[in-house]
Amino acid sequence: MNKVRTHHAIETIGLEGQQVRLAGWVARRRDHGGVTFIDLRDASGVVQVVADPAQLPIAADLRMEACIAVDGVVRPRPEGTVNNDLATGAFEVVVTIIELLSPAEPIPFMIDDRVEIDEQTRLEYRYLDLRRPRMAANLRARSKAVAAIRRTLDERGFLEIETPTLVSSTPEGARDMLVPSRLRPGAFYALPQSPQLFKQLLMISGVERYFQIARCYRDEDFRSDRQLEFTQLDLEGAFWDEESVQENIEATLVAAVRDLRGVDIPCPFPRMTWQESMDRYGVDKPDTRFGMEIVDLTDEFRASEFRGFAGVVNAGGVVRGINTGGRELARSAADALVDDAKRLGAKGLVWMVVEPDGSLRSPVAKFLSEGESSAIAERLQAKPGDVLLLVADQWRTAVSVLGALRLQLGRPSGHEELKFLWVTDFPMFEEGEGGLTFLHHPFTSPQDVAVMASSPLQALSRAYDVVVNGVELGSGSIRIHDPNVQSQVFEILGISQAEQESRFGWFLKALRYGTPPHGGFAFGIDRLVMVLQQEINIREVIPFPKTQSGFDPLTEAPTEVEPAQLQEVGLRLDVRREK
Amino acid sequence: MNKVRTHHAIETIGLEGQQVRLAGWVARRRDHGGVTFIDLRDASGVVQVVADPAQLPIAADLRMEACIAVDGVVRPRPEGTVNNDLATGAFEVVVTIIELLSPAEPIPFMIDDRVEIDEQTRLEYRYLDLRRPRMAANLRARSKAVAAIRRTLDERGFLEIETPTLVSSTPEGARDMLVPSRLRPGAFYALPQSPQLFKQLLMISGVERYFQIARCYRDEDFRSDRQLEFTQLDLEGAFWDEESVQENIEATLVAAVRDLRGVDIPCPFPRMTWQESMDRYGVDKPDTRFGMEIVDLTDEFRASEFRGFAGVVNAGGVVRGINTGGRELARSAADALVDDAKRLGAKGLVWMVVEPDGSLRSPVAKFLSEGESSAIAERLQAKPGDVLLLVADQWRTAVSVLGALRLQLGRPSGHEELKFLWVTDFPMFEEGEGGLTFLHHPFTSPQDVAVMASSPLQALSRAYDVVVNGVELGSGSIRIHDPNVQSQVFEILGISQAEQESRFGWFLKALRYGTPPHGGFAFGIDRLVMVLQQEINIREVIPFPKTQSGFDPLTEAPTEVEPAQLQEVGLRLDVRREK
Repeated sequence: MNKVRTHHAIETIGLEGQQVRLAGWVARRRDHGGVTFIDLRDASGVVQVVADPAQLPIAADLRMEACIAVDGVVRPRPEGTVNNDLATGAFEVVVTIIELLSPAEPIPFMIDDRVEIDEQTRLEYRYLDLRRPRMAANLRARSKAVAAIRRTLDERGFLEIETPTLVSSTPEGARDMLVPSRLRPGAFYALPQSPQLFKQLLMISGVERYFQIARCYRDEDFRSDRQLEFTQLDLEGAFWDEESVQENIEATLVAAVRDLRGVDIPCPFPRMTWQESMDRYGVDKPDTRFGMEIVDLTDEFRASEFRGFAGVVNAGGVVRGINTGGRELARSAADALVDDAKRLGAKGLVWMVVEPDGSLRSPVAKFLSEGESSAIAERLQAKPGDVLLLVADQWRTAVSVLGALRLQLGRPSGHEELKFLWVTDFPMFEEGEGGLTFLHHPFTSPQDVAVMASSPLQALSRAYDVVVNGVELGSGSIRIHDPNVQSQVFEILGISQAEQESRFGWFLKALRYGTPPHGGFAFGIDRLVMVLQQEINIREVIPFPKTQSGFDPLTEAPTEVEPAQLQEVGLRLDVRREK
Repeated sequence: MNKVRTHHAIETIGLEGQQVRLAGWVARRRDHGGVTFIDLRDASGVVQVVADPAQLPIAADLRMEACIAVDGVVRPRPEGTVNNDLATGAFEVVVTIIELLSPAEPIPFMIDDRVEIDEQTRLEYRYLDLRRPRMAANLRARSKAVAAIRRTLDERGFLEIETPTLVSSTPEGARDMLVPSRLRPGAFYALPQSPQLFKQLLMISGVERYFQIARCYRDEDFRSDRQLEFTQLDLEGAFWDEESVQENIEATLVAAVRDLRGVDIPCPFPRMTWQESMDRYGVDKPDTRFGMEIVDLTDEFRASEFRGFAGVVNAGGVVRGINTGGRELARSAADALVDDAKRLGAKGLVWMVVEPDGSLRSPVAKFLSEGESSAIAERLQAKPGDVLLLVADQWRTAVSVLGALRLQLGRPSGHEELKFLWVTDFPMFEEGEGGLTFLHHPFTSPQDVAVMASSPLQALSRAYDVVVNGVELGSGSIRIHDPNVQSQVFEILGISQAEQESRFGWFLKALRYGTPPHGGFAFGIDRLVMVLQQEINIREVIPFPKTQSGFDPLTEAPTEVEPAQLQEVGLRLDVRREK
């Protein structure tokens, strides 16, 4: 049917003697003994094309990455020239016609995974960067992951429903991106930080199983794994409890991992409360691929002579430690660890090296009783050569600092092994600037309304995160479906009745029309594919990402616009920009 | 597993004697002979619940649309009370527990398809409106259509790839919606009118088969079938000709129609050139479900005594006519048609009624020779009682006016029958204000570059539309892959070299790196589902649409924002709005 070609590169396998027409790009060209060899690359792979430049002078002139079509006959490669690294490596195509479909300028970098290129250049020539096998594989992987997720939810009777992206300002903590309205000059739409309220409206609408692969927007100062726009699987169900949500999310992840990695991850995922995660790993997104867990040593120091520790304990603090295993610890490295701990917020860090005789070498060794030393060694299961790290501080600081040092010293590189788990039972609130702030979002249901009313900081929520290899993939919760509880939560967050009415009045009203109990989840597609593809930078799995400053080196977005265009939406520039 | 319920309403069929727990909404409640009957509705359907209000006082107090869970036993309905209109109509559930999950305020309108409600109210209470069976069916249909399209393309090896939605200004004719940048105050992203240039970049990137269900944005003054944001299937392939694109698009439409309508539409769709479509139907999106085609009568009047027609013909104009079939035509109705024609741009309209003896009754009858009269009757295959309409004017006006009157008089209501077709061979350019403008978009390939260079208005493009029942579903083209041809097209459109460089320089550069020949298509998901669901308003198939003025009566978007938020992005209001 297709006149441009009859076969893809990969389809030449086993076609010896057959006439084919191929089309693709010149991945490599070399002249050898009066013969030109061209590696022709298309979406399926690469095949070697052989031409006689005496008959086909064009063969010797082809630039790298030119787009060509060729006519020829498939033959087995001569003995000794088979290339086992290539799927088509036992064949080649002897061509009689080469048609230059599109010439190529000299390329700014080689289309080769092994070449290191600065990211600015890669993004400026993204259309060449994406021709590299690793990047092409990432595009395919992302498409497969999303297809696996959709297929799973489709089979389970979910409806895929699109919610608006020109919305009113949403209340999820980050800054909104604004879109000025032309028909109502001076008014603005916001781009959604998530479809949160619309998916809850869908539950009120009687949709019992909703999902969407949704574009979301957060105007945060860029971190290495954030973009202004990102994509999440967004999911919600009515008449659901935590198990219902988690089981469905696990099914999507199992399908994606199976299709991308060819392995079945065990289900259900392990569950761990937020408290346990903080105690054992010092973070709410534990990397459980390795041990080095945090151990509570507080009791050993309650009556210690070592004032540095005992004082902290008696003031309500804790002493926690980790055993980082056998490693060299030069004095300079030890000092660097102490600096790291201080930078992370600790007042100090105590390191200890276990000597061959089991005694502890440490700046504080002389302050410790023999009983304390041996208790530490025992609790941390210390062996000669192990390096132990201890922090005495308020609980949150102690575990956080040790959690960070644990990752710094122990975390595996890459994501070959996959350790998924659920972190559950998050606190509802934490202390923020000028009052309480939410840990998840203000629509999350408390576990116990009475506890929340009497001591909000003690209240646990019905929120849960899914974590893989120390990466928070996403989070969800059972939502509040009672408008009075919703109002109570707003109040604890310091949102007055008047402000509730003006910002969320429409939503509180909607809750009053037979809202079913409901809950849901969202996880980042970019992050999932990043982990499954063993990438460490989220931009490697986004076809056309922005730089850290929100700039696209390819199209040069964002750009200035004409003053008239601003006037149409009732705006003018507030800054004079230097030209 | 689920504690809230054990079964859906529809699953009670055949479960007589079994204990079930159901959850849903009170669709209807009536008290009858000391028994309360509740129609319990969930996402699966409705089942009748029977309660004894003496035992369960709550049963008598339940408001319409309250959300409840019930425990009971399924039993066959007593003889004579079976409801054949209901899937579960042979069964009912006798309940012993009713739990009020969420109360409901008095509802502003009945949840019933037969009730007419003004759209403002429907949108303000969209979460109730979407509980109506027709709207719930539209949500399900849309989800199914999109799933069918995705499944088809997935099976054909397409990659689903997300392109950015914070882009630089795009050049597709409509106004861009802007998003101010905070990190570069005074600079703006645009929301994409389509992924056009990014999908072309993907072709340059070596992706050979791309698709995306993409959100797009056009800041046009609203027409009845337009929204600020809309969704299209966007598709592109490399090394493709027109047939390749059309065959893939047909496959997606066949799958969607099969899954929504249960019928197989014949493939390939009929093809018709733009010229033929204009000549026969007066529009480029012909409704081919009915005849009433436009007939060329020019030659009959070339030498006519009737100066009104002969003058037009001799000045290069045409005479065209349609036979609107047998119908009553009172004088007032005839006058109204003449007014319609004038409003549509014609200088006049001639109507003729075929008398029982075959003669023509018409204001112009006396000016026509017998030969002319019988020629008209013959060419239009007139029978006694038929009403004929003739327009003498420039070609474009004559066919357009008759095409519009044809639809007004002949178009079937609804979309029960589906007539898909391709309209091909569009002109490249047409005369616009201050120069030539494109019919499709500036990236569409001409059929013949030499013709385009010498006489642009004669040049045909490689563009094609898919039309169903007179609705333009979408359009596509084989694109320009040669940067010099692209530059030539820009020039014909009056875009200077300097402007080309500043607006499209990055794209012209990308074309210079081995761009494969490529082409693609996009069709509107909203429009497709609208037609397949027999809706006449696109807002019926959009879960949360905006009104014609871009307002959301539910969330009140767009809203005003704090001046500080504007300052952050380097803007301030240019208008003072009255409070």
